[in-house]
Amino acid sequence: MIKVFSKEYRVKHNDTDFSGLLSIASLGNFVLDTAGLHAIEIKTSMEILNKQNLTWVITGMHFNIIEMPKINSEIKITTKITETSRLACKRDFFVEHNQKIIAQVSTEWLIINCETRRPVFLTDILPHINNLITPENQIDKYHHLRFQINEKALKNYYSVAYSDIDINKHLYSMRYIELAMNTININYFSNHKISTIDINFMSEILYGENIEILTENFDNIYHIEMQNSEHKPMFRAEIVWK
Amino acid sequence: MIKVFSKEYRVKHNDTDFSGLLSIASLGNFVLDTAGLHAIEIKTSMEILNKQNLTWVITGMHFNIIEMPKINSEIKITTKITETSRLACKRDFFVEHNQKIIAQVSTEWLIINCETRRPVFLTDILPHINNLITPENQIDKYHHLRFQINEKALKNYYSVAYSDIDINKHLYSMRYIELAMNTININYFSNHKISTIDINFMSEILYGENIEILTENFDNIYHIEMQNSEHKPMFRAEIVWK
Repeated sequence: MIKVFSKEYRVKHNDTDFSGLLSIASLGNFVLDTAGLHAIEIKTSMEILNKQNLTWVITGMHFNIIEMPKINSEIKITTKITETSRLACKRDFFVEHNQKIIAQVSTEWLIINCETRRPVFLTDILPHINNLITPENQIDKYHHLRFQINEKALKNYYSVAYSDIDINKHLYSMRYIELAMNTININYFSNHKISTIDINFMSEILYGENIEILTENFDNIYHIEMQNSEHKPMFRAEIVWK
Repeated sequence: MIKVFSKEYRVKHNDTDFSGLLSIASLGNFVLDTAGLHAIEIKTSMEILNKQNLTWVITGMHFNIIEMPKINSEIKITTKITETSRLACKRDFFVEHNQKIIAQVSTEWLIINCETRRPVFLTDILPHINNLITPENQIDKYHHLRFQINEKALKNYYSVAYSDIDINKHLYSMRYIELAMNTININYFSNHKISTIDINFMSEILYGENIEILTENFDNIYHIEMQNSEHKPMFRAEIVWK
Protein backbone atom coordinates (compact mmCIF):
# COMPACT_ATOMS: atom_id res chain seq x y z
CA MET A 1 0.00 0.00 0.00
CA ILE A 2 1.22 3.47 -0.92
CA LYS A 3 1.94 5.31 2.34
CA VAL A 4 2.81 8.60 0.65
CA PHE A 5 0.43 9.64 -2.13
CA SER A 6 0.69 12.51 -4.66
CA LYS A 7 -1.74 14.12 -7.08
CA GLU A 8 -1.39 17.04 -9.51
CA TYR A 9 -3.92 19.82 -10.09
CA ARG A 10 -4.14 22.82 -12.40
CA VAL A 11 -5.38 26.10 -10.88
CA LYS A 12 -8.49 27.07 -12.88
CA HIS A 13 -9.91 30.60 -13.12
CA ASN A 14 -12.65 29.78 -10.58
CA ASP A 15 -10.07 28.40 -8.12
CA THR A 16 -8.65 31.89 -7.59
CA ASP A 17 -9.94 34.92 -5.69
CA PHE A 18 -9.90 38.53 -6.94
CA SER A 19 -6.10 38.62 -6.56
CA GLY A 20 -5.80 36.04 -9.36
CA LEU A 21 -4.09 33.66 -6.90
CA LEU A 22 -5.37 30.29 -5.61
CA SER A 23 -7.94 30.85 -2.85
CA ILE A 24 -7.74 29.18 0.57
CA ALA A 25 -11.06 27.41 -0.05
CA SER A 26 -9.88 25.95 -3.37
CA LEU A 27 -6.56 24.86 -1.87
CA GLY A 28 -8.61 23.19 0.88
CA ASN A 29 -10.80 21.45 -1.71
CA PHE A 30 -7.72 20.11 -3.54
CA VAL A 31 -6.25 18.88 -0.24
CA LEU A 32 -9.49 17.11 0.72
CA ASP A 33 -9.65 15.56 -2.74
CA THR A 34 -6.11 14.20 -2.40
CA ALA A 35 -7.03 12.76 1.01
CA GLY A 36 -10.08 11.03 -0.49
CA LEU A 37 -8.08 9.49 -3.34
CA HIS A 38 -5.33 8.26 -0.99
CA ALA A 39 -7.97 6.79 1.33
CA ILE A 40 -9.41 4.76 -1.58
CA GLU A 41 -5.85 3.50 -2.31
CA ILE A 42 -5.21 2.38 1.30
CA LYS A 43 -8.71 0.99 1.91
CA THR A 44 -9.76 3.59 4.49
CA SER A 45 -12.28 5.39 2.23
CA MET A 46 -15.66 6.94 3.01
CA GLU A 47 -17.34 4.21 0.91
CA ILE A 48 -15.85 1.45 3.11
CA LEU A 49 -16.92 3.25 6.30
CA ASN A 50 -20.40 4.10 4.97
CA LYS A 51 -21.12 0.38 4.47
CA GLN A 52 -20.76 0.00 8.27
CA ASN A 53 -22.87 3.11 8.96
CA LEU A 54 -19.71 5.04 9.88
CA THR A 55 -18.12 8.13 8.38
CA TRP A 56 -14.98 10.29 8.57
CA VAL A 57 -15.44 13.77 10.01
CA ILE A 58 -12.80 16.49 9.94
CA THR A 59 -12.21 18.20 13.29
CA GLY A 60 -9.54 20.76 12.44
CA MET A 61 -7.12 22.15 9.87
CA HIS A 62 -3.93 24.16 9.95
CA PHE A 63 -2.76 26.05 6.85
CA ASN A 64 0.73 27.47 6.48
CA ILE A 65 0.84 29.58 3.31
CA ILE A 66 4.21 30.47 1.79
CA GLU A 67 3.07 31.69 -1.63
CA MET A 68 -0.14 31.11 -3.55
CA PRO A 69 0.11 30.08 -7.24
CA LYS A 70 -1.47 31.95 -10.18
CA ILE A 71 -4.21 30.88 -12.64
CA ASN A 72 -3.11 27.95 -14.85
CA SER A 73 -0.25 26.95 -12.50
CA GLU A 74 0.29 23.22 -11.99
CA ILE A 75 0.56 22.18 -8.34
CA LYS A 76 1.44 18.84 -6.79
CA ILE A 77 -0.03 17.77 -3.44
CA THR A 78 1.66 15.01 -1.44
CA THR A 79 -0.17 13.51 1.54
CA LYS A 80 0.50 10.94 4.26
CA ILE A 81 -0.90 9.87 7.63
CA THR A 82 1.54 11.23 10.23
CA GLU A 83 -0.03 10.27 13.56
CA THR A 84 -2.93 8.37 15.11
CA SER A 85 -4.38 8.20 18.62
CA ARG A 86 -7.20 5.98 19.91
CA LEU A 87 -9.75 8.27 18.26
CA ALA A 88 -7.98 10.63 15.87
CA CYS A 89 -5.98 10.38 12.67
CA LYS A 90 -3.65 13.21 11.57
CA ARG A 91 -3.00 13.64 7.86
CA ASP A 92 -0.47 16.14 6.47
CA PHE A 93 -0.14 17.72 3.01
CA PHE A 94 2.77 19.33 1.17
CA VAL A 95 1.86 21.58 -1.76
CA GLU A 96 4.52 22.16 -4.43
CA HIS A 97 4.76 24.43 -7.46
CA ASN A 98 7.87 24.26 -9.68
CA GLN A 99 9.51 21.85 -7.18
CA LYS A 100 9.16 24.42 -4.38
CA ILE A 101 6.95 23.99 -1.29
CA ILE A 102 4.35 26.78 -1.44
CA ALA A 103 1.96 25.62 1.31
CA GLN A 104 1.64 23.03 4.07
CA VAL A 105 -1.62 21.82 5.53
CA SER A 106 -2.43 19.46 8.39
CA THR A 107 -5.83 17.93 9.15
CA GLU A 108 -7.31 15.81 11.91
CA TRP A 109 -10.09 13.27 11.44
CA LEU A 110 -12.37 11.09 13.58
CA ILE A 111 -14.56 8.16 12.59
CA ILE A 112 -18.11 8.63 13.90
CA ASN A 113 -21.16 6.41 13.97
CA CYS A 114 -23.71 7.94 11.55
CA GLU A 115 -26.59 7.42 13.99
CA THR A 116 -25.14 8.18 17.43
CA ARG A 117 -22.79 10.86 15.90
CA ARG A 118 -20.22 9.66 18.52
CA PRO A 119 -16.60 8.78 17.68
CA VAL A 120 -15.47 5.15 17.63
CA PHE A 121 -12.00 3.66 18.25
CA LEU A 122 -9.93 3.98 15.08
CA THR A 123 -8.20 0.57 15.22
CA ASP A 124 -11.47 -1.25 15.97
CA ILE A 125 -12.63 -0.20 12.50
CA LEU A 126 -9.34 0.04 10.55
CA PRO A 127 -6.88 -2.37 12.25
CA HIS A 128 -4.27 -1.79 9.52
CA ILE A 129 -4.12 2.01 9.95
CA ASN A 130 -1.13 2.02 12.33
CA ASN A 131 0.98 0.33 9.64
CA LEU A 132 0.30 3.29 7.35
CA ILE A 133 1.88 6.04 9.49
CA THR A 134 4.84 8.08 8.20
CA PRO A 135 5.70 10.28 11.20
CA GLU A 136 8.80 12.08 9.81
CA ASN A 137 8.75 15.75 8.87
CA GLN A 138 5.35 16.60 10.39
CA ILE A 139 3.36 19.79 9.96
CA ASP A 140 2.09 21.59 13.08
CA LYS A 141 -1.30 20.43 14.30
CA TYR A 142 -4.11 23.02 14.38
CA HIS A 143 -4.53 25.02 17.57
CA HIS A 144 -7.56 24.38 19.74
CA LEU A 145 -9.11 27.84 19.64
CA ARG A 146 -10.54 28.77 23.00
CA PHE A 147 -11.01 32.50 22.44
CA GLN A 148 -14.06 34.33 23.76
CA ILE A 149 -15.48 36.70 21.17
CA ASN A 150 -16.35 40.12 22.53
CA GLU A 151 -20.04 41.07 22.55
CA LYS A 152 -19.11 44.16 20.50
CA ALA A 153 -17.61 42.10 17.67
CA LEU A 154 -18.81 42.59 14.09
CA LYS A 155 -21.89 40.43 13.48
CA ASN A 156 -23.01 38.97 10.15
CA TYR A 157 -25.93 36.66 9.46
CA TYR A 158 -26.26 33.88 6.92
CA SER A 159 -28.80 31.22 6.04
CA VAL A 160 -27.31 27.99 4.63
CA ALA A 161 -28.47 27.48 1.03
CA TYR A 162 -28.51 24.83 -1.72
CA SER A 163 -25.08 25.73 -3.12
CA ASP A 164 -23.43 25.54 0.35
CA ILE A 165 -24.18 21.91 1.18
CA ASP A 166 -22.65 18.53 0.38
CA ILE A 167 -24.13 15.06 -0.06
CA ASN A 168 -24.92 14.93 3.69
CA LYS A 169 -26.90 18.22 3.45
CA HIS A 170 -24.29 19.85 5.77
CA LEU A 171 -22.32 22.99 5.09
CA TYR A 172 -19.25 21.99 2.98
CA SER A 173 -16.02 22.06 5.03
CA MET A 174 -14.45 24.73 2.86
CA ARG A 175 -17.64 26.81 2.72
CA TYR A 176 -17.19 27.49 6.49
CA ILE A 177 -13.91 29.26 5.81
CA GLU A 178 -15.31 31.13 2.79
CA LEU A 179 -18.21 32.45 4.87
CA ALA A 180 -15.76 33.40 7.63
CA MET A 181 -13.48 35.25 5.19
CA ASN A 182 -16.47 37.05 3.62
CA THR A 183 -16.80 39.04 6.87
CA ILE A 184 -13.33 40.62 6.41
CA ASN A 185 -13.16 43.91 4.48
CA ILE A 186 -11.84 43.41 0.97
CA ASN A 187 -9.27 46.19 1.36
CA TYR A 188 -7.61 44.09 4.05
CA PHE A 189 -7.11 41.28 1.48
CA SER A 190 -5.62 43.78 -0.98
CA ASN A 191 -3.01 44.96 1.52
CA HIS A 192 -2.15 41.75 3.40
CA LYS A 193 -1.28 38.15 2.65
CA ILE A 194 -2.34 35.19 4.80
CA SER A 195 0.40 33.52 6.83
CA THR A 196 -1.44 30.80 8.79
CA ILE A 197 -5.02 29.68 9.42
CA ASP A 198 -6.22 27.41 12.21
CA ILE A 199 -9.71 25.97 11.90
CA ASN A 200 -11.84 24.14 14.50
CA PHE A 201 -14.91 22.36 13.11
CA MET A 202 -17.04 22.06 16.25
CA SER A 203 -20.47 21.07 14.98
CA GLU A 204 -22.14 20.33 11.68
CA ILE A 205 -24.35 23.06 10.22
CA LEU A 206 -27.42 21.90 8.32
CA TYR A 207 -29.29 23.18 5.27
CA GLY A 208 -31.53 26.14 6.16
CA GLU A 209 -29.81 26.88 9.50
CA ASN A 210 -29.46 30.53 10.35
CA ILE A 211 -25.99 31.30 11.61
CA GLU A 212 -24.39 34.32 13.18
CA ILE A 213 -20.77 35.04 12.25
CA LEU A 214 -18.75 37.06 14.76
CA THR A 215 -15.51 38.68 13.67
CA GLU A 216 -12.88 40.64 15.57
CA ASN A 217 -9.26 41.53 14.97
CA PHE A 218 -6.18 42.54 16.92
CA ASP A 219 -3.34 43.85 14.78
CA ASN A 220 -2.73 41.16 12.14
CA ILE A 221 -4.88 38.44 13.74
CA TYR A 222 -8.55 37.78 12.94
CA HIS A 223 -10.78 35.65 15.17
CA ILE A 224 -14.00 34.41 13.61
CA GLU A 225 -16.71 32.31 15.25
CA MET A 226 -19.96 30.90 13.85
CA GLN A 227 -22.86 30.36 16.22
CA ASN A 228 -26.20 28.69 15.67
CA SER A 229 -29.47 30.38 16.62
CA GLU A 230 -28.99 29.24 20.25
CA HIS A 231 -25.55 30.92 20.34
CA LYS A 232 -23.74 27.58 20.44
CA PRO A 233 -20.27 27.88 18.79
CA MET A 234 -20.17 25.72 15.64
CA PHE A 235 -16.86 26.80 14.08
CA ARG A 236 -13.84 28.90 15.00
CA ALA A 237 -10.99 30.19 12.86
CA GLU A 238 -7.86 32.20 13.58
CA ILE A 239 -6.28 33.89 10.57
CA VAL A 240 -2.79 35.36 10.98
CA TRP A 241 -1.67 37.76 8.25
CA LYS A 242 1.90 38.55 7.18
CA MET B 1 -4.71 25.73 -35.32
CA ILE B 2 -6.95 23.23 -33.56
CA LYS B 3 -10.55 24.16 -34.44
CA VAL B 4 -12.09 21.51 -32.19
CA PHE B 5 -10.54 21.23 -28.72
CA SER B 6 -11.10 18.66 -25.95
CA LYS B 7 -10.17 18.48 -22.28
CA GLU B 8 -10.85 15.88 -19.59
CA TYR B 9 -11.94 16.56 -16.00
CA ARG B 10 -12.62 14.41 -12.94
CA VAL B 11 -15.70 15.29 -10.87
CA LYS B 12 -14.43 16.07 -7.36
CA HIS B 13 -16.54 15.92 -4.17
CA ASN B 14 -16.91 19.72 -4.14
CA ASP B 15 -18.08 19.73 -7.78
CA THR B 16 -21.31 17.98 -6.80
CA ASP B 17 -24.43 19.17 -5.02
CA PHE B 18 -26.32 17.32 -2.27
CA SER B 19 -27.52 14.74 -4.82
CA GLY B 20 -23.90 13.58 -5.26
CA LEU B 21 -24.13 14.52 -8.97
CA LEU B 22 -22.16 17.25 -10.81
CA SER B 23 -23.73 20.65 -10.13
CA ILE B 24 -24.73 23.09 -12.89
CA ALA B 25 -22.26 25.68 -11.55
CA SER B 26 -19.34 23.22 -11.63
CA LEU B 27 -20.28 22.02 -15.11
CA GLY B 28 -20.31 25.69 -16.13
CA ASN B 29 -16.88 26.24 -14.56
CA PHE B 30 -15.44 23.26 -16.49
CA VAL B 31 -16.99 24.56 -19.71
CA LEU B 32 -15.55 28.07 -19.20
CA ASP B 33 -12.15 26.52 -18.40
CA THR B 34 -12.20 24.52 -21.65
CA ALA B 35 -13.10 27.72 -23.54
CA GLY B 36 -10.16 29.56 -21.95
CA LEU B 37 -7.69 26.81 -22.83
CA HIS B 38 -8.92 26.58 -26.42
CA ALA B 39 -8.71 30.38 -26.74
CA ILE B 40 -5.02 30.26 -25.71
CA GLU B 41 -4.46 27.59 -28.37
CA ILE B 42 -6.08 29.64 -31.17
CA LYS B 43 -4.64 33.01 -30.08
CA THR B 44 -7.95 34.58 -29.03
CA SER B 45 -7.25 34.51 -25.27
CA MET B 46 -8.11 37.02 -22.54
CA GLU B 47 -4.38 37.78 -22.16
CA ILE B 48 -4.09 38.83 -25.81
CA LEU B 49 -7.21 41.04 -25.53
CA ASN B 50 -6.18 42.53 -22.18
CA LYS B 51 -2.96 43.86 -23.74
CA GLN B 52 -5.18 46.03 -25.99
CA ASN B 53 -7.42 47.06 -23.08
CA LEU B 54 -10.15 44.74 -24.35
CA THR B 55 -11.83 41.74 -22.76
CA TRP B 56 -14.27 38.91 -23.55
CA VAL B 57 -17.65 39.08 -21.82
CA ILE B 58 -20.20 36.29 -21.81
CA THR B 59 -23.73 37.40 -22.71
CA GLY B 60 -25.67 34.17 -22.45
CA MET B 61 -25.63 30.40 -21.95
CA HIS B 62 -27.90 27.51 -22.80
CA PHE B 63 -27.58 24.19 -20.93
CA ASN B 64 -29.20 20.99 -22.11
CA ILE B 65 -28.76 18.34 -19.41
CA ILE B 66 -29.23 14.68 -20.30
CA GLU B 67 -27.67 13.06 -17.22
CA MET B 68 -25.28 14.43 -14.60
CA PRO B 69 -22.22 12.29 -13.66
CA LYS B 70 -21.36 11.10 -10.13
CA ILE B 71 -18.38 11.93 -7.88
CA ASN B 72 -15.07 10.64 -9.33
CA SER B 73 -16.49 10.29 -12.88
CA GLU B 74 -14.22 11.31 -15.73
CA ILE B 75 -15.84 13.64 -18.25
CA LYS B 76 -14.58 14.94 -21.57
CA ILE B 77 -15.58 18.38 -22.87
CA THR B 78 -15.22 19.18 -26.57
CA THR B 79 -15.58 22.79 -27.72
CA LYS B 80 -15.59 24.72 -30.98
CA ILE B 81 -16.62 28.11 -32.34
CA THR B 82 -19.85 27.50 -34.29
CA GLU B 83 -20.90 30.98 -35.45
CA THR B 84 -19.83 34.62 -35.49
CA SER B 85 -21.60 37.87 -36.32
CA ARG B 86 -20.14 41.39 -36.47
CA LEU B 87 -20.15 41.57 -32.66
CA ALA B 88 -20.79 38.11 -31.23
CA CYS B 89 -19.03 34.77 -31.15
CA LYS B 90 -20.94 31.55 -30.40
CA ARG B 91 -19.05 28.67 -28.80
CA ASP B 92 -20.59 25.22 -28.24
CA PHE B 93 -19.62 22.40 -25.86
CA PHE B 94 -20.30 18.66 -25.88
CA VAL B 95 -19.89 16.88 -22.54
CA GLU B 96 -19.23 13.13 -22.63
CA HIS B 97 -19.02 10.42 -19.98
CA ASN B 98 -18.21 6.83 -21.03
CA GLN B 99 -18.41 7.90 -24.71
CA LYS B 100 -22.00 9.07 -24.24
CA ILE B 101 -23.15 12.72 -24.54
CA ILE B 102 -24.49 13.69 -21.11
CA ALA B 103 -24.84 17.48 -21.59
CA GLN B 104 -24.62 20.17 -24.27
CA VAL B 105 -23.90 23.81 -23.60
CA SER B 106 -23.81 26.85 -25.87
CA THR B 107 -22.36 30.26 -25.00
CA GLU B 108 -22.24 33.67 -26.64
CA TRP B 109 -19.43 36.19 -26.20
CA LEU B 110 -18.66 39.81 -27.08
CA ILE B 111 -15.37 41.69 -27.01
CA ILE B 112 -15.74 44.95 -25.07
CA ASN B 113 -13.44 47.89 -24.50
CA CYS B 114 -12.42 47.84 -20.80
CA GLU B 115 -12.94 51.60 -20.44
CA THR B 116 -16.02 52.41 -22.52
CA ARG B 117 -17.55 48.95 -21.66
CA ARG B 118 -18.94 49.03 -25.25
CA PRO B 119 -18.60 46.10 -27.70
CA VAL B 120 -16.16 46.33 -30.63
CA PHE B 121 -16.26 44.59 -34.04
CA LEU B 122 -14.95 41.06 -33.66
CA THR B 123 -12.94 40.88 -36.90
CA ASP B 124 -11.31 44.28 -36.27
CA ILE B 125 -9.61 42.69 -33.28
CA LEU B 126 -9.32 39.02 -34.31
CA PRO B 127 -9.21 38.98 -38.14
CA HIS B 128 -8.49 35.21 -38.17
CA ILE B 129 -11.59 34.23 -36.16
CA ASN B 130 -13.81 33.49 -39.18
CA ASN B 131 -11.36 30.80 -40.29
CA LEU B 132 -11.90 29.01 -36.98
CA ILE B 133 -15.64 28.34 -37.33
CA THR B 134 -17.01 24.78 -37.37
CA PRO B 135 -20.74 25.31 -37.98
CA GLU B 136 -21.89 21.66 -38.20
CA ASN B 137 -23.99 20.03 -35.49
CA GLN B 138 -24.78 23.20 -33.51
CA ILE B 139 -26.37 23.45 -30.10
CA ASP B 140 -29.40 25.77 -29.67
CA LYS B 141 -28.54 29.35 -28.79
CA TYR B 142 -29.83 30.68 -25.44
CA HIS B 143 -33.25 32.35 -25.48
CA HIS B 144 -33.46 36.09 -24.95
CA LEU B 145 -35.58 36.13 -21.80
CA ARG B 146 -38.08 38.96 -21.90
CA PHE B 147 -40.35 37.84 -19.07
CA GLN B 148 -41.83 40.35 -16.62
CA ILE B 149 -41.60 39.09 -13.06
CA ASN B 150 -44.80 39.54 -11.07
CA GLU B 151 -44.66 41.99 -8.14
CA LYS B 152 -45.83 39.15 -5.88
CA ALA B 153 -42.84 36.93 -6.78
CA LEU B 154 -40.66 35.47 -4.02
CA LYS B 155 -37.95 38.02 -3.09
CA ASN B 156 -34.50 37.25 -1.70
CA TYR B 157 -31.68 39.68 -0.92
CA TYR B 158 -27.93 39.17 -1.20
CA SER B 159 -24.83 41.31 -0.80
CA VAL B 160 -21.91 40.31 -3.05
CA ALA B 161 -18.96 39.10 -0.92
CA TYR B 162 -15.26 38.24 -1.21
CA SER B 163 -15.82 34.60 -2.20
CA ASP B 164 -18.27 35.56 -4.99
CA ILE B 165 -15.98 37.70 -7.12
CA ASP B 166 -13.33 37.10 -9.77
CA ILE B 167 -10.16 38.94 -10.73
CA ASN B 168 -12.28 41.85 -12.08
CA LYS B 169 -14.07 42.18 -8.71
CA HIS B 170 -17.34 41.20 -10.45
CA LEU B 171 -19.67 38.40 -9.49
CA TYR B 172 -18.31 35.14 -11.06
CA SER B 173 -20.41 34.02 -14.05
CA MET B 174 -21.34 30.74 -12.39
CA ARG B 175 -22.07 32.38 -9.03
CA TYR B 176 -25.07 34.15 -10.67
CA ILE B 177 -26.71 30.80 -11.38
CA GLU B 178 -25.82 29.43 -7.91
CA LEU B 179 -27.45 32.43 -6.24
CA ALA B 180 -30.47 32.03 -8.52
CA MET B 181 -30.80 28.32 -7.70
CA ASN B 182 -30.44 29.03 -3.96
CA THR B 183 -33.90 30.65 -4.08
CA ILE B 184 -35.56 27.36 -5.09
CA ASN B 185 -36.79 25.07 -2.29
CA ILE B 186 -34.49 22.10 -1.80
CA ASN B 187 -37.38 19.64 -1.92
CA TYR B 188 -37.93 20.68 -5.52
CA PHE B 189 -34.35 19.58 -6.33
CA SER B 190 -34.96 16.24 -4.61
CA ASN B 191 -38.03 15.51 -6.73
CA HIS B 192 -37.06 16.97 -10.12
CA LYS B 193 -34.14 16.94 -12.53
CA ILE B 194 -33.10 19.91 -14.66
CA SER B 195 -33.81 19.63 -18.37
CA THR B 196 -32.62 23.00 -19.79
CA ILE B 197 -31.36 26.35 -18.49
CA ASP B 198 -31.20 29.61 -20.42
CA ILE B 199 -29.14 32.41 -18.92
CA ASN B 200 -28.95 36.11 -19.89
CA PHE B 201 -26.04 38.03 -18.37
CA MET B 202 -27.33 41.61 -18.70
CA SER B 203 -25.02 43.64 -16.49
CA GLU B 204 -21.97 43.08 -14.34
CA ILE B 205 -22.54 43.01 -10.57
CA LEU B 206 -19.77 44.44 -8.42
CA TYR B 207 -18.32 43.58 -5.00
CA GLY B 208 -20.55 44.87 -2.19
CA GLU B 209 -23.61 45.42 -4.42
CA ASN B 210 -26.95 44.62 -2.83
CA ILE B 211 -29.10 42.59 -5.16
CA GLU B 212 -32.69 41.48 -5.09
CA ILE B 213 -33.47 38.04 -6.50
CA LEU B 214 -37.03 37.48 -7.75
CA THR B 215 -38.26 33.95 -8.32
CA GLU B 216 -41.52 32.61 -9.70
CA ASN B 217 -42.63 29.32 -11.18
CA PHE B 218 -45.32 27.95 -13.45
CA ASP B 219 -45.58 24.16 -13.45
CA ASN B 220 -42.08 22.90 -14.23
CA ILE B 221 -40.59 26.27 -15.28
CA TYR B 222 -38.74 28.66 -12.95
CA HIS B 223 -38.09 32.30 -13.88
CA ILE B 224 -35.43 34.08 -11.84
CA GLU B 225 -34.32 37.71 -12.18
CA MET B 226 -31.64 39.64 -10.30
CA GLN B 227 -32.07 43.38 -9.91
CA ASN B 228 -29.72 45.99 -8.54
CA SER B 229 -30.81 48.47 -5.86
CA GLU B 230 -32.40 50.69 -8.58
CA HIS B 231 -34.48 47.71 -9.78
CA LYS B 232 -32.52 47.44 -13.02
CA PRO B 233 -32.49 43.80 -14.29
CA MET B 234 -28.91 42.43 -14.15
CA PHE B 235 -29.49 38.74 -14.87
CA ARG B 236 -32.29 36.44 -15.95
CA ALA B 237 -32.55 32.66 -15.98
CA GLU B 238 -35.20 30.21 -17.10
CA ILE B 239 -34.91 26.71 -15.65
CA VAL B 240 -37.05 23.98 -17.18
CA TRP B 241 -37.34 20.75 -15.15
CA LYS B 242 -38.08 17.27 -16.43
